[in-house]
Parts: sequence; structure tokens; C-alpha cells
Amino acid sequence: MTDTHDPGFAWDLAKSRERRTKRWSVYGPDVLDLTVAEMDLPIAEPILTVLRDAIERQTFGYPIPAARSGLPETTAKWLTETHGLTVDPGEIRLLPELMKGITNALREFTAPGSAVIVPTPTYRSFFGAVSLADREAVQVPLLDGHRLDYDRIDAAFAAGAGSLLLCHPANPVGRIFSPAELRQLAEIAERHGGRVISDEVHAPLRYGVDFVPYAAVSEAARRQAVTLFSASKAWNIAGLRCGFVALTNPDDVVRWDRLPGAASGGISPLGMVASAAAFEHGAPWLERALAFLDANRRRLADQFADAGMPEVYHPADATYLAWLDLRRLGLADPARLLREKAGVAVTAGPDHGTSGAGFVRLNYATQPDVLADAAARIIQVLE
Amino acid sequence: MTDTHDPGFAWDLAKSRERRTKRWSVYGPDVLDLTVAEMDLPIAEPILTVLRDAIERQTFGYPIPAARSGLPETTAKWLTETHGLTVDPGEIRLLPELMKGITNALREFTAPGSAVIVPTPTYRSFFGAVSLADREAVQVPLLDGHRLDYDRIDAAFAAGAGSLLLCHPANPVGRIFSPAELRQLAEIAERHGGRVISDEVHAPLRYGVDFVPYAAVSEAARRQAVTLFSASKAWNIAGLRCGFVALTNPDDVVRWDRLPGAASGGISPLGMVASAAAFEHGAPWLERALAFLDANRRRLADQFADAGMPEVYHPADATYLAWLDLRRLGLADPARLLREKAGVAVTAGPDHGTSGAGFVRLNYATQPDVLADAAARIIQVLE
Repeated sequence: MTDTHDPGFAWDLAKSRERRTKRWSVYGPDVLDLTVAEMDLPIAEPILTVLRDAIERQTFGYPIPAARSGLPETTAKWLTETHGLTVDPGEIRLLPELMKGITNALREFTAPGSAVIVPTPTYRSFFGAVSLADREAVQVPLLDGHRLDYDRIDAAFAAGAGSLLLCHPANPVGRIFSPAELRQLAEIAERHGGRVISDEVHAPLRYGVDFVPYAAVSEAARRQAVTLFSASKAWNIAGLRCGFVALTNPDDVVRWDRLPGAASGGISPLGMVASAAAFEHGAPWLERALAFLDANRRRLADQFADAGMPEVYHPADATYLAWLDLRRLGLADPARLLREKAGVAVTAGPDHGTSGAGFVRLNYATQPDVLADAAARIIQVLE
Repeated sequence: MTDTHDPGFAWDLAKSRERRTKRWSVYGPDVLDLTVAEMDLPIAEPILTVLRDAIERQTFGYPIPAARSGLPETTAKWLTETHGLTVDPGEIRLLPELMKGITNALREFTAPGSAVIVPTPTYRSFFGAVSLADREAVQVPLLDGHRLDYDRIDAAFAAGAGSLLLCHPANPVGRIFSPAELRQLAEIAERHGGRVISDEVHAPLRYGVDFVPYAAVSEAARRQAVTLFSASKAWNIAGLRCGFVALTNPDDVVRWDRLPGAASGGISPLGMVASAAAFEHGAPWLERALAFLDANRRRLADQFADAGMPEVYHPADATYLAWLDLRRLGLADPARLLREKAGVAVTAGPDHGTSGAGFVRLNYATQPDVLADAAARIIQVLE
């Protein structure tokens, strides 16, 4: 332990259950629930410290205005230093949760009624956010499950779509798109005057693969981009309600600031202090967490390979999500079977888009024994 | 002190500043800011206790499903016992903040494009919520500043409005509408098939005046009503992000549950535990707080009366908001003058609707010396 903030990772699953969050509260004790995007790991000590302090200071009222909080500065510095996205604090706005940012961006920055291109499989809540903006999603499956289909994207923009909703790194497949790929996307979008909303919330959770934000790949991309990110996934604080949008198109800043307060309402001041602590002091914890997660995913891959089914899982670039190929079962939605026969809850593939048929999403951010047990149960069903 | 949970109310304003919430963060030290709806009082000990516990348990993930939380039961019991609104836990749904409930209700329960009747002056964020639902607000000023204008409401429904957005008790005027008044409103709405969305968040903050929820005044009202409430205002925890909607029309429950998750996304698990503590153990603190606030508003009225201007402020039925009649200044928006000349920030009357011209809203939930100082400064400008 080289860092005094590092708590180590001794963690009993009973402690996760005591959190009384969604993670272990949906099913009874017989089901291993690996659906919810929370980690069975202790929270980083710098975050606990600021939260304890905020409780004693009674920081429970309306959030301090962002401009007086120091948070845009902290966040811009973090984005620049860790993601290489050069942003000014004046380009950062706060949000209670990122889906609200998508709905705002679609409503404000794209033509009324214009369709939204969604490369799939993708984060399932995207579809709800698109529907709340009264827009239609045009699903464009990733080629071979991991490459952008430029021809269909081009055609969809040509047919009137106003935007593309990118998940980068991609949830659930774990893909980090390369700068060359994203530049090609930006050229297509530019030709059609399209916008690209890029949810980059998983970016800190990467395994030695370079990550370049969409907005950083070209000048065109910077103008098109609405970049969403937060500390919520990487530091396991989704319930604290603070996310961010980087508005790298100056016109967007002006329009965003004209939105009614309710468009960004719901930010928690506790999420603000926790996010600042994560960005400023959370790197050592994150490094340990990534080593832990990396070991988990390697063991998971080995376990399927050892069972003679290596095609089920290939470790990807990022996220703590495994996208399991269960097409050998011949079922569109194998998740139900796994829950009923194996007592393992995973997210249904088709929830991530029609191209998710035959797949399931499994969260491997749990303790190794739980993960091994879940994989063994899944293997038994597959056999 | 008859209750061990009661902390007493010794409180230095410096402690409010240390909270680093919006309350004392917008202006410099020369301005007394009485705009933001937070109280300069210590938080109730039962709430601090559950929050300290939640920090140690690391309750920072996605919220536990409401049905597994016990919160609908706690909330229904509180609503029934303290407000006389008989609701089943199955009729309660959670929200991150109440404006989202208004937007959802307008979108889901009223005809597309139908206008929204808004008795004014009203809570200023209502206008933003209406606009986010892509609806138009039809302002209907309260008669003499405190009575519903049935004729104009009837005419607005007849002209196609689909709903009425009630603030009950009324922010900023502090009025509690009587059951007879609300029954008359319900009859009008019933004739036109209209809905009534009733924001009852201030209901616990009343001064010896009976309060009957809109949904409780008649069977018609119960069917029309979408009732919003929370512990956020009365227990000073607006930033913890948990509110409630009571859906007393069974069809509404079915439609609400079909909404995408993003429509209710943003609830904090910390707000959930704090709300439960407020409803279950917060009554003794609230009683003391109301005595404190009641003394404040009486002193405020006396101070204006002693200065020979009793018309400026009349204590009302509820809330900790004073609606100051500054029409003697002959200005549509006296708030700017008060900020510049008196160093007192109050909410501009016209922000609450066009009928707010000449008025300002002042939050008197502060320490007596601060309130006396602010009133003296205002009186000096008025003189």
C-alpha cells in the first residue's frame, strides 16, 4: 500500500448488501445479481472523507452555483489531464444524471422531430432518453459487434437524422473507438450537419488502451460534440447525483444557459463534493480498482475457455461489463433462462438494441468468488 | 426539551455559510440573501443520524427499488396521519425532484399541446416545468392575491386547457385553500375533463390552519389529482433528491409505470433514507421549527407596522415565505432596487407570474437578527 488513501480491497459481499442500494436488493439470496452497474468494492477513502465532512456541515440544501463551487475548474483539469480533452471551465455544465443531458441536447441542439442514430448494442437507458425527447431512435448495429457501420450511419443522416448517440467506451461491448474511426464518423456527421452526443462515463475504466474523447479527434468533432461524463461509474457513486456535460461548441453554451432551471434540476451538493474528491484524489484508488477488475475479467475469460467455450467472452478495452455471446443457446433473450435455471441475473441482450439478441450483459465488478460462482452456473446451463 | 432528538435551535449564520449550499453562496458578504428556499436552522437529529449511518454503509449506488425500501409504506402512513389523505403505498411513486413529476404528469396525463392553467403568483419553477413538457402556461391571477378566479379558470378549461397547476399551500402567497374552494375547483375541472396537479410540498409548514390535500376534497378531485409532496422543504433537505407523487387515479399508476426509467431517474438513496427519517421521526423538530418561524413572521409584520407600513406584509397560513407588497414604490420589479440600495436579495415578484408586479418574495426562515436587519434595510428604501 503506497497510498494512505488506499483502503485495500478486502470486502465482504455482506457489506454490499448492507448498502441497501439496488445492487443486491432486487432478488432474493438465491440469485446472484450481476445486472446493476455498481461495484462490490469499498468506496475510495477521499470520497468518504468529504462526504463525512459534508454531513457534519449539513450540506443538504440546493447546490451551490457551479461557478462558485470550483468544480468546473477541477473537472476541466481532470478532463484535460486524464482524457486529453482541452476544455475551459466555462464549457462545463453540471447535471443530476446523464440521461437528462441527452434529452436536453436532443431537444435543444437538433431539429424538432429529427431521428437519433444509435449504434447498437448500447446502454439501454439511451432509448428512454430519446423517447423523453420525443425523438425516434434509428438503430445501426455495430459491424461484427464492435465497428461503426459508416454506410448505414451516412444513410441515416441522409434520411434526416439530426444526431448520433455514441457510447464511448461502448456499453455493453467495452469497445474504445480509435481516433481514426471517430474522425471518419465526424466527417460523415459534418457532411450532414449532424450532432454527436458522446457518453464517455466509462472512460476512466480502461485497461491499458488509449482513450481519446470524441470531441478531441478533430475540429469538426469538437463543434458537433456534446460530451457527457461523470465520476459516477468509475468511483461507484451513481446515487450521489452529479454528472457533467462539456459543451465544446460555443453556441451550445449560450443555448444551454437559456434552458429553464428544471432542465438541470436535481443535482445533489453531496454528489458535487464527491465528484471533486474523485477527480482530485481518486486516481490511486482507481488504479487499484482497475487491477482488481482486470484480474476478474481474465479469470472470467479463462473460466469459459477452460469449459471449452472460449467464444462466450473476450475481454474488451474498457468498462466492467462483459458482453457474453450465448447464441449457442439459440434464444433471443437467454437472460431469463439464466435467472431461472442458474440463479444468475444478467441484463437481457435485446434491452441494448435488437442486435443484442442472443447476448447478455454481466457486471464483473464483484468479488472473485461471486464471479466464479456465477460463471460456473452459466457454464452449467450452456452445457 | 421533551425530545432527545431535538437539537435546540442555537445556530450561527456562519454555520449556514459553511454548508456551502446555494443559500449563502450567490452574493458577497454585503448582501443578505433571502431568496433561496433553505432554512438557517440546524437539521433534525434523526436525519443526521440516518445520513451518518448511510455514509458508513456507503449507500451511494443506484437507489433500492421503492417497493423494497419500505418508503412507500412510511410515506403513505405519514400522508394519511398528518394530511388526512388516505393513500395506499401502491399509489406512491418516487421522484428525484418535483418539477420532473409535473413534466411527467403533463406529458402523460393531458392531451398533447393542451395548455396548463397556472393560478398566479406561483412557484416560479412551474413555468420551466411547463415549458419542458412543451406546453403553454395560461396565467390566471388569484383574485385579491389569494382567491381562485373560478370564472377565468372555467373559461381557460373551456378554451382547451387540459390541466391546472396548483401550489397548495400557495408559494409565494402562503395561502391554504379551503376544502370548499377546492371542491368548487374540482367541479369545474370535472366538467371539462381536466386534471389538477397539486404541489403540496409546503403543507407541513403551516401555522395552526387546517390543511386538506386537493385529492381529499371529493371523489372527483381524487380522480383528477396528481399530488406532489416531499420532506425537502419542511426538513430542509432539498439537495438530497427524493420527492414523491401520489397517484390516486388508478389509470395514472398504470401509465406512470410504463414511463422509461429516465423519467424518474435521479433519485438519491441518501434522500430516501433522509425522507423516511423525516416522516417517521421528524415531527418534534418540525414543531419547534414552526414555533421559530411563527415568531419570525410575527416580528416581521410588527416591524413593518411599527414603521407605518402595515400593508407591506400580512402573515399567511403556511410556508416560510413572505410576499411583500412594495407597490408603493411604483416599480414592476422592486427586487433589483432592494438588492442595489438595501443589500437585500429577494425573489422578483414578476418571476412568480405577471400578477407579481410590485411584489417580492422574502424567505424568513433565517435567524431573527438577520431578518430584523433585512427588514430594516427594506424599510429604509421604502421610506
